[in-house]
Amino acid sequence: MQNFTYHNPTKIINGKNTQKEIGNILANDDIKSVLLVYGMNSIKKSGLYDEIISILKEKNIRVVEHAGVKSNPVLTHATKGADLAKSHKVDAVLSVGGGSVLDECKAIAAGAKVDFGIWDFYTAKAVAKEALPIYAILTISATGSEMNSGSVLTNEATSEKFAFGSLVTFPKVSIINPEFTYSLPTEYLIYSAVDIIAHTIEIYFTATTLPLIQKRFMENILKTVIETTEKALKAPKDYDARAEFSLAATWALNGLTKPGTGGSTFPNHMIEHSLSAIYDVAHGAGLAVVILAWMKYFKEERREIFTRFAKEIFQVETAEDGIKAFEAWLKKIGSPTTLEDLKIEKSDTLDIAKNAFISSTNWGMSKKYTTEVIKDILDLA
Amino acid sequence: MQNFTYHNPTKIINGKNTQKEIGNILANDDIKSVLLVYGMNSIKKSGLYDEIISILKEKNIRVVEHAGVKSNPVLTHATKGADLAKSHKVDAVLSVGGGSVLDECKAIAAGAKVDFGIWDFYTAKAVAKEALPIYAILTISATGSEMNSGSVLTNEATSEKFAFGSLVTFPKVSIINPEFTYSLPTEYLIYSAVDIIAHTIEIYFTATTLPLIQKRFMENILKTVIETTEKALKAPKDYDARAEFSLAATWALNGLTKPGTGGSTFPNHMIEHSLSAIYDVAHGAGLAVVILAWMKYFKEERREIFTRFAKEIFQVETAEDGIKAFEAWLKKIGSPTTLEDLKIEKSDTLDIAKNAFISSTNWGMSKKYTTEVIKDILDLA
Repeated sequence: MQNFTYHNPTKIINGKNTQKEIGNILANDDIKSVLLVYGMNSIKKSGLYDEIISILKEKNIRVVEHAGVKSNPVLTHATKGADLAKSHKVDAVLSVGGGSVLDECKAIAAGAKVDFGIWDFYTAKAVAKEALPIYAILTISATGSEMNSGSVLTNEATSEKFAFGSLVTFPKVSIINPEFTYSLPTEYLIYSAVDIIAHTIEIYFTATTLPLIQKRFMENILKTVIETTEKALKAPKDYDARAEFSLAATWALNGLTKPGTGGSTFPNHMIEHSLSAIYDVAHGAGLAVVILAWMKYFKEERREIFTRFAKEIFQVETAEDGIKAFEAWLKKIGSPTTLEDLKIEKSDTLDIAKNAFISSTNWGMSKKYTTEVIKDILDLA
Repeated sequence: MQNFTYHNPTKIINGKNTQKEIGNILANDDIKSVLLVYGMNSIKKSGLYDEIISILKEKNIRVVEHAGVKSNPVLTHATKGADLAKSHKVDAVLSVGGGSVLDECKAIAAGAKVDFGIWDFYTAKAVAKEALPIYAILTISATGSEMNSGSVLTNEATSEKFAFGSLVTFPKVSIINPEFTYSLPTEYLIYSAVDIIAHTIEIYFTATTLPLIQKRFMENILKTVIETTEKALKAPKDYDARAEFSLAATWALNGLTKPGTGGSTFPNHMIEHSLSAIYDVAHGAGLAVVILAWMKYFKEERREIFTRFAKEIFQVETAEDGIKAFEAWLKKIGSPTTLEDLKIEKSDTLDIAKNAFISSTNWGMSKKYTTEVIKDILDLA
């Protein structure tokens, strides 16, 4: 087992009607003004926007609005948010939405405290030492952003999609009401499931040190996502399925799968980020396609864990059959599984591979992921 | 699934040689003086005492010593510690030892900030609103105290063994070096294993709401403890076994097994606390005996989960066979399984039951645990 440090100061509140607690939480922390950050119209349609505004008004909390976060959040919009937070001198950032909104909020919270451009955090030119406190009301469970410090942003000018995180960008409090996911379009549920699976298997398959307690922990997350996705597809208002799904999402990327493991990398995320930076494909959709291709490419290197995956998750015997079963499951839930499904031409794989290779240092990837190798992987998609 | 709040601000550092980090950690937090709390002679024999003293000296951190914590820590000694912390105006409490030392440190840290007696926290007459920061170097993995706010103390005058905890009594940083457990006497390993199992199965068997993700999470902890205990008994210096054991111990009582569950109670701890308050039996030894008796008594009420336990943990079919397999495993690792093994007379069960019943309100237990019922359970031991 590897040495590890685990520290996650975020407070998670999960359950029915929990969004109503935001007023007391902010008031108790002496927050008098917030930058309210959200995406497009969905929280207005659902009534959540009105509910939050009325709660904030009741507590006399001043609200500055920053709407229009994209589902792959972009640098220009985040920069505008940081400028707003600075000019209006807000006490905190309040994220209402999914992982994309929260990721942009982390950029804004850190950006509001510095005089240079936010992108410097993402290129590791600067380290975030302070940030406005971040509060979140989560409407989609997928990215795990509610309980980690990570933020992924796309620089539209350079088509780069990079990540950063620091101790100051953990949300202070994240509120998750699984009922909010009842009304999500089906493809959001599917992409969310893939995203959680991706967070889990990046470590599961790539770690060179992997204690048994962690193998089982990750298999538990995978089984939970598979079971609850199927339940929620059949009955969108199955509360227990939605709530267990949300717990699996939080656990998959709050650092808990890491302790004691070593040597893991995120090749699928690296490749998918380039894909969705260029094509504006949903993150989960891109991941499903990349993962399947990568599994086929990578299975020889870690045959033992691929065989275990096959047995534990799909009750089949060989690594190959495990991958086939996973592919069949993705098709069954309605996920894309090929580049063709994403309407990406095979002739474009070299461009994606080049973009991904440029970012590989940023991802701390091993040197084996050359442009040629990444293209080879994409050609399996 | 039940609504939940999860918040655990403790930073965990686990691994070889990690005790060496304590100097930088304290210096970075601007700690200039500590109350150094420890037990008897073991840390002096092992050389850890000298190592810590020399690290603290190097960082110019003033040290006030408070030695002699008992393995069931007592109120009078904790009160003395709080008085020392107050009179010497220390900045922090540094726990070097196992869960007992850490539990007493929590009492001291909160007690140093108030003018009334510490016991008021344990009888819920007072709530701890502030405390000195607590840093810990853990030498035994068992109680989970390194990553929770809980503290158990015995009032010798009244033979009461009560618990308390508050957000301010979470350790700020806990350092765990699994190598420290190499030299522990075998019975410590056995009792530690039982303690971790007890923390897990109290929730596992008593919860009235128990999501599948949590069932599997707890079964993972149980399997890990069983496997790694056997490995460490065979080869005390099996680092990976010791390290996975330590991770299971931390996870079993850091709050992670609770989210989404509902209705759980701690009957085994309630009864064992009375037993060890009266007889000064090791907590883990008492627990092993109480758990087996309680399982026999309780299995009808939750047959489904007892049957699942039998299948998942011991690969046998019925609830009864699961309990028998657990009893056989306890015997195999050398744990006591009966009151007789603890040298407690059957005629004493009424006294233990009376003491336990008095504490049942404090434990928030359901009314069914009357003196008669508790005596019935103990008579099965």
